[in-house]
Amino acid sequence: MNVYAAPIRDLRFVLEELLAHRSLSLPGFEDASPDLVEAVLEEAAKLAGDVWGPLNTIGDRQGAKRQSDGSVTTPEGFAAAYQAYVEGGWNGIGVSEALGGQNLPEVVASAVQEMLHGANMALGLCPMLTAGAIEALAHHGSDALKAAYLPKLVEGTWTGTMNLTEPQAGSDLSKVRTKAVPEGDHYRLNGQKIYITWGEHDAAENIIHFVLARKPDAPEGNKGISLFLVPKFLVNDDGTLGERNDVICTAIEHKLGIHGSPTCSLSFGEQGGAIGYLVGKEGRGLNHMFTMMNEARHKVGIQGIGVAERACQHAFAYARERQQGRLPAARGGQECTISEHLDVRRMLLAMRARTDALRALALYCAAQLDIARHAHNPAERQTAQARVDILIPVVKSFSTDQAVEIASLGVQVHGGMGYIEETGAAQLLRDVRIAPIYEGTNGIQALDLAGRKLQRDNGEAFASLLKDAAETVEKLNAEPALGHLGQALAAGLEDLSAAQQQVLEQGKDPDRGPDAVQGYATPFLNLVGHVLCAWQMGQAALSAQAALNNGSDDPFYTAKMRSAEFAIMQWLPIGRAQRAVIEAGIQCLSDFEVD
Amino acid sequence: MNVYAAPIRDLRFVLEELLAHRSLSLPGFEDASPDLVEAVLEEAAKLAGDVWGPLNTIGDRQGAKRQSDGSVTTPEGFAAAYQAYVEGGWNGIGVSEALGGQNLPEVVASAVQEMLHGANMALGLCPMLTAGAIEALAHHGSDALKAAYLPKLVEGTWTGTMNLTEPQAGSDLSKVRTKAVPEGDHYRLNGQKIYITWGEHDAAENIIHFVLARKPDAPEGNKGISLFLVPKFLVNDDGTLGERNDVICTAIEHKLGIHGSPTCSLSFGEQGGAIGYLVGKEGRGLNHMFTMMNEARHKVGIQGIGVAERACQHAFAYARERQQGRLPAARGGQECTISEHLDVRRMLLAMRARTDALRALALYCAAQLDIARHAHNPAERQTAQARVDILIPVVKSFSTDQAVEIASLGVQVHGGMGYIEETGAAQLLRDVRIAPIYEGTNGIQALDLAGRKLQRDNGEAFASLLKDAAETVEKLNAEPALGHLGQALAAGLEDLSAAQQQVLEQGKDPDRGPDAVQGYATPFLNLVGHVLCAWQMGQAALSAQAALNNGSDDPFYTAKMRSAEFAIMQWLPIGRAQRAVIEAGIQCLSDFEVD
Repeated sequence: MNVYAAPIRDLRFVLEELLAHRSLSLPGFEDASPDLVEAVLEEAAKLAGDVWGPLNTIGDRQGAKRQSDGSVTTPEGFAAAYQAYVEGGWNGIGVSEALGGQNLPEVVASAVQEMLHGANMALGLCPMLTAGAIEALAHHGSDALKAAYLPKLVEGTWTGTMNLTEPQAGSDLSKVRTKAVPEGDHYRLNGQKIYITWGEHDAAENIIHFVLARKPDAPEGNKGISLFLVPKFLVNDDGTLGERNDVICTAIEHKLGIHGSPTCSLSFGEQGGAIGYLVGKEGRGLNHMFTMMNEARHKVGIQGIGVAERACQHAFAYARERQQGRLPAARGGQECTISEHLDVRRMLLAMRARTDALRALALYCAAQLDIARHAHNPAERQTAQARVDILIPVVKSFSTDQAVEIASLGVQVHGGMGYIEETGAAQLLRDVRIAPIYEGTNGIQALDLAGRKLQRDNGEAFASLLKDAAETVEKLNAEPALGHLGQALAAGLEDLSAAQQQVLEQGKDPDRGPDAVQGYATPFLNLVGHVLCAWQMGQAALSAQAALNNGSDDPFYTAKMRSAEFAIMQWLPIGRAQRAVIEAGIQCLSDFEVD
Repeated sequence: MNVYAAPIRDLRFVLEELLAHRSLSLPGFEDASPDLVEAVLEEAAKLAGDVWGPLNTIGDRQGAKRQSDGSVTTPEGFAAAYQAYVEGGWNGIGVSEALGGQNLPEVVASAVQEMLHGANMALGLCPMLTAGAIEALAHHGSDALKAAYLPKLVEGTWTGTMNLTEPQAGSDLSKVRTKAVPEGDHYRLNGQKIYITWGEHDAAENIIHFVLARKPDAPEGNKGISLFLVPKFLVNDDGTLGERNDVICTAIEHKLGIHGSPTCSLSFGEQGGAIGYLVGKEGRGLNHMFTMMNEARHKVGIQGIGVAERACQHAFAYARERQQGRLPAARGGQECTISEHLDVRRMLLAMRARTDALRALALYCAAQLDIARHAHNPAERQTAQARVDILIPVVKSFSTDQAVEIASLGVQVHGGMGYIEETGAAQLLRDVRIAPIYEGTNGIQALDLAGRKLQRDNGEAFASLLKDAAETVEKLNAEPALGHLGQALAAGLEDLSAAQQQVLEQGKDPDRGPDAVQGYATPFLNLVGHVLCAWQMGQAALSAQAALNNGSDDPFYTAKMRSAEFAIMQWLPIGRAQRAVIEAGIQCLSDFEVD
């Protein structure tokens, strides 16, 4: 039962029909044709389905294990599956040719990532972190550092980590205490980091840690934090691996899920100081790290979608097979599978519609990322970047919150079987429950959206996005069978405009503004997510209807119409309720005494 | 951190102020005074907090273990904690004096159960099942069976189980295949049962299984099913334990949570046939079992609330302690605990308000149960019973769905710590995730509500309940500070009336009725739960406001006002959205092809 088949058709629908392969027409992607993309997706589907997917259960049961010498053993098969990924050249898929990558658009890389995370989220985390490391190094590293580390990171022969959190410094990184003392051309680092994903493992020959730390004379707070590169094995001038650096895994966490992914506590400097190299500018560590984190946030959203897709497949397969109850007399009265019961179908369609919508939105965001980086016209790049800035916290939070609900619905579809670990449904819920927490909690994302992102341009980027969505409304209204979807989407857009106005205005207040942003952040992000998802499903309905109007009898389009219908008519209303929540104000939060 | 303190003050608020101890004035409860109830709650709080609560983590880590001889060892301390419960006389708390119980109202028993489940849900399941067994036996057993088994079950010296599910018969029990062959004054049972909670264990000297099975000549379907009592140890005429009966635990499940509760596969008749006794009438097994299940359904709701309360306490304690970030400048700008951030407070207040509301509704339902059983006036009894019939599926489903969300919010409040098992927040989520599944999935509950319960009296019981809620609206409107709550509740009631009308009418359709009930069931139940919870919190606001108007400066009432404000103004809107979901119809569910 616990089988994953990469959703190639759904991914192609988004890339080809909703996004019309816009990214392929951008400067720099001349070599990437639709045929090539199709071939890439097919190959990635094989890696995901045949190699990574079958290890998902093993990874959960065995877990990563720390040995007494501080080394970490990953579950059986993980190292080989990671090697297959490296050898296939998958690690550099979205990296530019100049850096040694495959130079495919982000939107294609995101589609591939969705498949890999759906197949095996715990293993998918390893290259996800490396991707962030590549970004940070490529943007901020010196030429020497880039020359020494980038090629191996892009290949995936070495993996990367992000070392942010310390016991007293989680969401508030200004509290970071790890010290970096200058010594010649390098630094000596001392300190403890926790929650380091794939911080130590046996799947690659070297691990390159990107570490937030302070110089001894650095000021307190954010401005004293710098970013350092600390390799597990020092690298000789000829590129070969040298001595073991002074960083050791002191523990791995016993977690709710993603057991195959070692979450490490790392100790730097137990033997006198780990050798590290400054990346970028002194005191700019947090900014540089955010280069990694912004990337990673989008990828966490994608990850949620991958697991949601797997939960859909798992629940659909069970519901199609499980005999229980009978059809109503009017439908014949015979014994049937639970997929025939409308209450079960409501769960299944809710899972499918949400997953479809989240995927469309996340890939739309990736396509905007491509435009922001590659479009010829600077104004176009800027508009796209402004959208990306808004969309990333939404993709991260909304996709992951929803993925948890989708995985939980998946458990529910299985009835009693869902609660038994052997079935596999529960693992998906356990695994994906981390996604709303890491790479900045979903609350932090919501603050980023309702605060910085909305306030800094007075809601301008937001308005431009809503204008595009209003065009979708017009198109829906022009299509006889889809007018009701147009009306429903228009109502959602109106709610969003009103809420946005309120959050923007109250957020400006010099005294109460920061509390207003805090108080409204989560319902606002939730509303934005719902409305943007409904917008994307409006686009999906238009595409599917066009195909059907053209005489297609492909059941894919009929299914997509149901999914769009459900998303807009039966899911969007729940999101629209957030307007009333926002209009209720935040006084009762301010007044509430937690003690 | 992982500490539970029974919420006595909150429970007393509901019993004394919202329900005005109505149950104590009923015939049969003359000996139960408010002082006695208070003392009972205090004592139960000690058992829960001092004895059961500290074992919750151990129970999760050790789990119940099946030995090679088929016996099951419960986690360290569980057997002794259960003995302390039995010795304290807690098992008979809600059982009538005639049956050897303490004869306290259901509402008091429910309050005690909430504490015990909050302290240790896995252990709480053991007596929960026994309570169902007592009901079934007391209502349907012969005098001889009652004389032989009831006293020990009421004491708790022996525990009870419900044996319904077989691999092919879950939600659809008509598929039960276990056979019962008559032999003299008893039967010989052969068959396999799965998912038997506390089906085998070492915490009591005997286990009395209540088993659904068929006689060899029984018709197919529901009407061929009878209920049998099958003791683990046969009972001699003098009441001493005799031979081991032919029933054995063949496996225990590896589950997502409640590891301390053994979920057994039982095999009856591997040595020729387990001796069993018919309970009630032949062919009426399902009806008799429903006596157990109706009880159990209310208790599962209570269980959800117990865990939700524990999740609240856990999250509040963490948020009050965890230093991270700073106050906004307008509030001083100093470093603060996360409980000061309004986004975190939104999570905490959402947890608290929902838990308060669910508790009030579940205890209201228990109080109606008392009236239904004990009121002098038959019409009053009948009205109360009709309400109970409506409320039980709501209490079961809505409390447990919400409890899962509350426990998940609890994980989120903890940030990265929430995902680490040592913290304890994740266990609460894992444990409570079963509650929407067992004792009839929440989907089954919703069908029961939207189908049988709503249709059979044409919505009459429903209307009478809404009339009472409308009175609360009037009272709120009459209170200057609470008028906005009255308006919001009135809007919710209007949505509920409209939705109820639609479900009732479409449910009547001879052809499409059954599908309509199926299709609307879950959003309808969800709407009912939200509106009834808002009603209860309207009552809570009136009580708290009255106390404040009378000059009370007890912060308890201020906190209760915030909780009511949040529940009605910021939680109810989400539920109200279900009206739009219902109005969107079910065509797209009917059309959706799962294949």
